[in-house]
Amino acid sequence: MHHAILWSLTMIMFTMPHLDAQEKKVRIAIHGGAGTILKSNMSPEMEKQYRDALTGAITAGYKLLREGKSSMDAVEAVIRIMEDNPLFNAGKGSVFTHEGTNELDASIMDGRTLKAGAVAGVKHIKNPISLARMVMDQSQHVMMAGEGAESFARQHGVEMMPVEYFRTERRWQQLQEELEKEKSGGKINALPTLPIEKKFGTVGCVALDVNGDLASGTSTGGITNKKFGRVGDSPIIGAGTYANNATCAVSATGDGEYFIRSVVAHDVSSLMEYGKLSVQAAADTVVAKVGRIGGTGGVVCLDKGGRIALSFNTEGMYRAYIDEEGNPVVLIYK
Amino acid sequence: MHHAILWSLTMIMFTMPHLDAQEKKVRIAIHGGAGTILKSNMSPEMEKQYRDALTGAITAGYKLLREGKSSMDAVEAVIRIMEDNPLFNAGKGSVFTHEGTNELDASIMDGRTLKAGAVAGVKHIKNPISLARMVMDQSQHVMMAGEGAESFARQHGVEMMPVEYFRTERRWQQLQEELEKEKSGGKINALPTLPIEKKFGTVGCVALDVNGDLASGTSTGGITNKKFGRVGDSPIIGAGTYANNATCAVSATGDGEYFIRSVVAHDVSSLMEYGKLSVQAAADTVVAKVGRIGGTGGVVCLDKGGRIALSFNTEGMYRAYIDEEGNPVVLIYK
Repeated sequence: MHHAILWSLTMIMFTMPHLDAQEKKVRIAIHGGAGTILKSNMSPEMEKQYRDALTGAITAGYKLLREGKSSMDAVEAVIRIMEDNPLFNAGKGSVFTHEGTNELDASIMDGRTLKAGAVAGVKHIKNPISLARMVMDQSQHVMMAGEGAESFARQHGVEMMPVEYFRTERRWQQLQEELEKEKSGGKINALPTLPIEKKFGTVGCVALDVNGDLASGTSTGGITNKKFGRVGDSPIIGAGTYANNATCAVSATGDGEYFIRSVVAHDVSSLMEYGKLSVQAAADTVVAKVGRIGGTGGVVCLDKGGRIALSFNTEGMYRAYIDEEGNPVVLIYK
Repeated sequence: MHHAILWSLTMIMFTMPHLDAQEKKVRIAIHGGAGTILKSNMSPEMEKQYRDALTGAITAGYKLLREGKSSMDAVEAVIRIMEDNPLFNAGKGSVFTHEGTNELDASIMDGRTLKAGAVAGVKHIKNPISLARMVMDQSQHVMMAGEGAESFARQHGVEMMPVEYFRTERRWQQLQEELEKEKSGGKINALPTLPIEKKFGTVGCVALDVNGDLASGTSTGGITNKKFGRVGDSPIIGAGTYANNATCAVSATGDGEYFIRSVVAHDVSSLMEYGKLSVQAAADTVVAKVGRIGGTGGVVCLDKGGRIALSFNTEGMYRAYIDEEGNPVVLIYK
């Protein structure tokens, strides 16, 4: 028996290529939101801006993973880049609430330890994903909301911004259009309707590092004309974000309400763990299930073997990953 | 074939007893929190108070179900009763935050429609469970937090209370003890520690009505000396509360952080749906999984066939259900 094992190990050593941190399989995928994203509505200039932004973010994350950085570090760094880019509805480019403020949500989860951090409804945090990670690393809590979360941020020296930082002209105009529509439609506050042309401007990232550890994170500015302290799926562990080394890492973007009710991210993991589905089959199944109750959007998923699944039921989803040869693949439409 | 089906139907009709709303199988179970609840620490008077309160709540819920009320109505009514009772850490009896305020969380889910409602960090709502239901019924959202949730409540005429309503002497003393411990231990705010003698004063209810519809709900005042707008598992759909007619209804109580990370309530459902476990096996599996990452607490679960599972890994859990003969069973210790 011992000889047989030794022989097997020797064979493995001879047949495997020499692997260092640079050559081990690392994987990463991102999304920048899903919705009615049609080529017919997109100017070539705008499309180029999105493609460049997605390429920049995914390339930066891949570089960190290749350098041996953890999947948690890569996820945080990539989402910070996307939060800082006004193109995406997260961080700087966040949409406006009904009151003309910005309320940001984010969450992050470590597949190795099943530790997680989340913040909801913060108004001055430049990078909510980093605050979510700080909640995970520096407190005994998983989720903090509103002013309490900001007070924690201040105590920990997290970078805070005046509210003007989050004011971009494009998002301000979107709010004005929504308010105008609401007024002309005579809609009452009691039943706020979601915009018909829906774009779920969330950003998210899933990563697998050289140690085989999975992580995922999600960040958003929520929905334009948001009222009543509404919380969507992005800061909810199990709905917008989930990671577990035993199965997969998931980040979602879509109708937050339907995604919460469907516990989307954890359902992908459960279908793999208990239902023995592949990550692609699990992702497709969950997106179809959400669709059956009326929800639209998508997920980016990455399993422990490095398989990536990008599944959505909308016209488009801003998304990118690094292929087996190390090249960025950027996709927008169906 | 048609004759065979007709014969089968006829046989079923003859062999089934006549069922009216009063005789159809309805089921209900509740919890009033879990933790280091030891008979040696409990005075006979205190034990009687808890037993009477649990008996009163479960009996009222069962009566509603027998009258043909929906499981949603029963869950809401039972939790309102427990919220109004200062014995339980929910509604009137809520514990105090570090700042000496009360921040209440609740959620409810309808297993038939998979609709859900949740509120987090509300300070003036007499019955957070009813506000959670109103979020579900009267808005397009699932979750609202803080002042936004209160503004929604005001617009909808939900009963609001001055903060003094929530001030009970017993909870105030608990906060003073925690603050004293914190001061003497020289602990810094950055790493708030949870009390060693842990009691998770959450209330929850699961119900099955005459139509075979499941529902669940959970309500809490959180943890004593809570800081930074911490949100626990109680208002998180998938963690503290989940209901699905295809599987089960679940309400959890325990270390909120571990319960969020474990997506406890949805995991029970997933183990039944994909793993084909019974509700008891699923509940026991999930409580053991939470325990392995360091979390303590419990769940009350009810499957579509009316089977009840009450599982916990603490010394005690306040709990009650109605047995097959219609009698209340009230349990406290292991």
